[in-house]
Amino acid sequence: MTTKKRLYEIMEKAEKGDLLSRIVDLFILTLIILNVTMVILETVGGVKETYGESIEIFETICVVIFTVEYLLRIWCCTADTKFARPLTGRLAFMLTPLALIDLMAIFPYYVFVLVTIPPDYTLPLRLLRLFRLLKVGRYSRSMQMFGRVIWEKRHELYIAVFALAILLIIVSSLMYFVEHHAQPEAFSSIPTTMWWGIVTLTTVGYGDVFPITPLGKVLGALIAVLGVGMFALPAGILSSGFVEAMQESHRGDKCPHCGKDISTHG
Amino acid sequence: MTTKKRLYEIMEKAEKGDLLSRIVDLFILTLIILNVTMVILETVGGVKETYGESIEIFETICVVIFTVEYLLRIWCCTADTKFARPLTGRLAFMLTPLALIDLMAIFPYYVFVLVTIPPDYTLPLRLLRLFRLLKVGRYSRSMQMFGRVIWEKRHELYIAVFALAILLIIVSSLMYFVEHHAQPEAFSSIPTTMWWGIVTLTTVGYGDVFPITPLGKVLGALIAVLGVGMFALPAGILSSGFVEAMQESHRGDKCPHCGKDISTHG
Amino acid sequence: MTTKKRLYEIMEKAEKGDLLSRIVDLFILTLIILNVTMVILETVGGVKETYGESIEIFETICVVIFTVEYLLRIWCCTADTKFARPLTGRLAFMLTPLALIDLMAIFPYYVFVLVTIPPDYTLPLRLLRLFRLLKVGRYSRSMQMFGRVIWEKRHELYIAVFALAILLIIVSSLMYFVEHHAQPEAFSSIPTTMWWGIVTLTTVGYGDVFPITPLGKVLGALIAVLGVGMFALPAGILSSGFVEAMQESHRGDKCPHCGKDISTHG
Amino acid sequence: MTTKKRLYEIMEKAEKGDLLSRIVDLFILTLIILNVTMVILETVGGVKETYGESIEIFETICVVIFTVEYLLRIWCCTADTKFARPLTGRLAFMLTPLALIDLMAIFPYYVFVLVTIPPDYTLPLRLLRLFRLLKVGRYSRSMQMFGRVIWEKRHELYIAVFALAILLIIVSSLMYFVEHHAQPEAFSSIPTTMWWGIVTLTTVGYGDVFPITPLGKVLGALIAVLGVGMFALPAGILSSGFVEAMQESHRGDKCPHCGKDISTHG
Repeated sequence: MTTKKRLYEIMEKAEKGDLLSRIVDLFILTLIILNVTMVILETVGGVKETYGESIEIFETICVVIFTVEYLLRIWCCTADTKFARPLTGRLAFMLTPLALIDLMAIFPYYVFVLVTIPPDYTLPLRLLRLFRLLKVGRYSRSMQMFGRVIWEKRHELYIAVFALAILLIIVSSLMYFVEHHAQPEAFSSIPTTMWWGIVTLTTVGYGDVFPITPLGKVLGALIAVLGVGMFALPAGILSSGFVEAMQESHRGDKCPHCGKDISTHG
Repeated sequence: MTTKKRLYEIMEKAEKGDLLSRIVDLFILTLIILNVTMVILETVGGVKETYGESIEIFETICVVIFTVEYLLRIWCCTADTKFARPLTGRLAFMLTPLALIDLMAIFPYYVFVLVTIPPDYTLPLRLLRLFRLLKVGRYSRSMQMFGRVIWEKRHELYIAVFALAILLIIVSSLMYFVEHHAQPEAFSSIPTTMWWGIVTLTTVGYGDVFPITPLGKVLGALIAVLGVGMFALPAGILSSGFVEAMQESHRGDKCPHCGKDISTHG
Repeated sequence: MTTKKRLYEIMEKAEKGDLLSRIVDLFILTLIILNVTMVILETVGGVKETYGESIEIFETICVVIFTVEYLLRIWCCTADTKFARPLTGRLAFMLTPLALIDLMAIFPYYVFVLVTIPPDYTLPLRLLRLFRLLKVGRYSRSMQMFGRVIWEKRHELYIAVFALAILLIIVSSLMYFVEHHAQPEAFSSIPTTMWWGIVTLTTVGYGDVFPITPLGKVLGALIAVLGVGMFALPAGILSSGFVEAMQESHRGDKCPHCGKDISTHG
Repeated sequence: MTTKKRLYEIMEKAEKGDLLSRIVDLFILTLIILNVTMVILETVGGVKETYGESIEIFETICVVIFTVEYLLRIWCCTADTKFARPLTGRLAFMLTPLALIDLMAIFPYYVFVLVTIPPDYTLPLRLLRLFRLLKVGRYSRSMQMFGRVIWEKRHELYIAVFALAILLIIVSSLMYFVEHHAQPEAFSSIPTTMWWGIVTLTTVGYGDVFPITPLGKVLGALIAVLGVGMFALPAGILSSGFVEAMQESHRGDKCPHCGKDISTHG
């Protein structure tokens, strides 16, 4: 076996029990989590001032490792028959979602190094580093399952979201008409009233806007009772999809006759 | 085939793959969505002052197209055997829900043109134009499915809403009795207390009214724990109805033996 | 058939299609709803002052009718073999839940007439008239179904409520310990903190109490994410019980082979 | 049968119908509930000042009884073949979770008696007595069932919690970026914004923090509509697991052919 092929196994998909591949995976996963935690804590007042230098060094180390990882992936991807051609194959590999995420994970650092960033764009660029979190998707069975559930239920979710949008427009227009005169600030226009509509129909209920006229309260009460059920639909769709997906992933491990685990079944 | 019959196919129900019919549908659908968006944005402060003229022109164009659409539908509806008679058939067609919605979509405009509206009635009439949104129902499978689910579950929903009304009366009367003396403003009467009841039982919880006496808090806590489950019923009913409806609409596409898609099944 | 037997049929359980029985039922049901609506509206400021006399007259008429209804039920109940004995049978009938509700529906009125009530006890006695609402239970299939679902799921609900109580104690004790020093008013004791606990775990979230210390917020966040699922259990139990009950009540009407309505099945 | 064996039966697991064992169980259960209630009420202002001495005496009695119970359990545990060896068997028994809970239930009292506690540590030590609540787990079928459901669904819950954590990080980072400048206090850092994220996504919505900029409101609305469904997942998982567990515990009592209770089946 060539070095490239072995490297490809380690980086991308190894057989179960390949210890080295597992160690590399765990190392990169730990690095991602530590790095994301650092980016998050960096925004806390005082942290940057106190630990600024250590953070800078750790960030550089991380980016170097992620860059090496990225370059190695591109180099060894030709071991896969799909990306076998030296140039076009590598280009096709670079355009896969996971490779793009890997690129975005290192990209902001090099922008900072190469270009002088105006202070207004510093924060968004620093936050872009949080895209590294998506690198976790490669290793996490749970994120893959979530992605699959959302993909499988996309029709149901699309229908639900479309119906919710129409419900929201109707509900907000009615409430705007009823409350506009009493609260010209909070219900200044239909789009503004939609903020009330979503806060109410998702039952978040911050309490920053709510009807105060008797008619507005009657309407708000009706909307809450009837509409909350509708806005609970995406939750129901995702829940049932998730339960189905879990059952399917377990099915192989169970006896189809008695439902018990094969492993304890003899 | 006569022109009328062809027009009827284009406007109402064409076979799958009828390109012209699809284009007309998409054109009208786009117009509805643009027009509704305009009506919504018109309520935002400053928009009307700045873009008033363009809005007026676009509104007129829309109404003209919707009027032509409405008249064409009435003219060619006699191509359907149900509405075959020239006069009584057309009248029956005009009283179908979808035709009434089409009429309501253009009606406010002509009222404005023909009658001098007192300023107090301008806003409601302008908002009536949002009825155009219901025209989307003709094209949207998701809205039709929602309508069907609500219709199929109407008995369950009726029972749930009736029980919720009784629960709300009991809960609000108890809370009124307990909190009336401590907060004579917020709990001034049983109907006023119902506002608290609904805001609490739907778990919206704006925070504008809540019990402050110890007894009121104990009662409120009991009501929240036991009542929230009841008010989640309509959501549960709609959710399960929606999941059933989606499964039924998929059933035709699946192999009854293995549950896989027919299309991928060979 | 004797008058008593016929009266019993009309008052209690007649065969389907007994028109007189249906009319009497509807008349009493309407009277209950009107009367309860009146009791509710009476608490609104100004209503009693303006319509006081009409309310008083309507109340008297209602009580007279309900009293006649109650006495007739007691008189004719001996037509039932269960309550056949003139004295002990009638006494047994008077102790059935529905007969006790009938008595409670008229009892407050006669207390007002016979005894001079100290002003402090006027409001509770007036509100006791709302017990009339429970008379609706005799006629409402939806309330009977709700009662049955709660009864059938009583073990599940008991287990859930017991577990929730223990969860609430643990959660409130932890939060009391963490937030007591920062907010000695809102988190003054464990029972006070339970108010926060219930408002949070049912996701009502009025916003009158919430943690303000960083540790309290971390704890509150963990409690919210993990505990909300537990407090949604009674809702889930009731929902599934209700869906089951509805399916059972429909089962008789459906073909067991194809699941379609017998009536449309031929 | 030796005294030790009989004692073991009474304390740990007796056959059904063993009256003495049941009485002892109920006695200890009552004592736990009374004692926990006392610890909770002790935190209410004034209670300790007024009933301090009685509380102290009751606490001592409880601890003496719990200590005797604990020592008896350790003495007689050798009657079980698993813990048969006098020394190592007893040590193994002392390390079982239930025995550790029993020890923790009496431990704080002896610390108070033996060591002088600095006033800062008095409250946490007093609250540690609430661990006695966990002793209920030995007797409560409902707590055991809850524990089993959480254990059985641990994979699903782990996956859901992991995905929620990632969702929370993404959502909070976006919101931090959008609202940071408008509300530098409430959205001072990403970890602070997570408080908003959890309060919103669990739909608690206290109203202490919410977006105020238009962009923040649009983002908050999108997050609420799409994210609430995700955060409802643990509730759905627990609910379905609980329903399954209840059905399983009932299964033994039902006829597998018709689903009716065996007892009423003949």
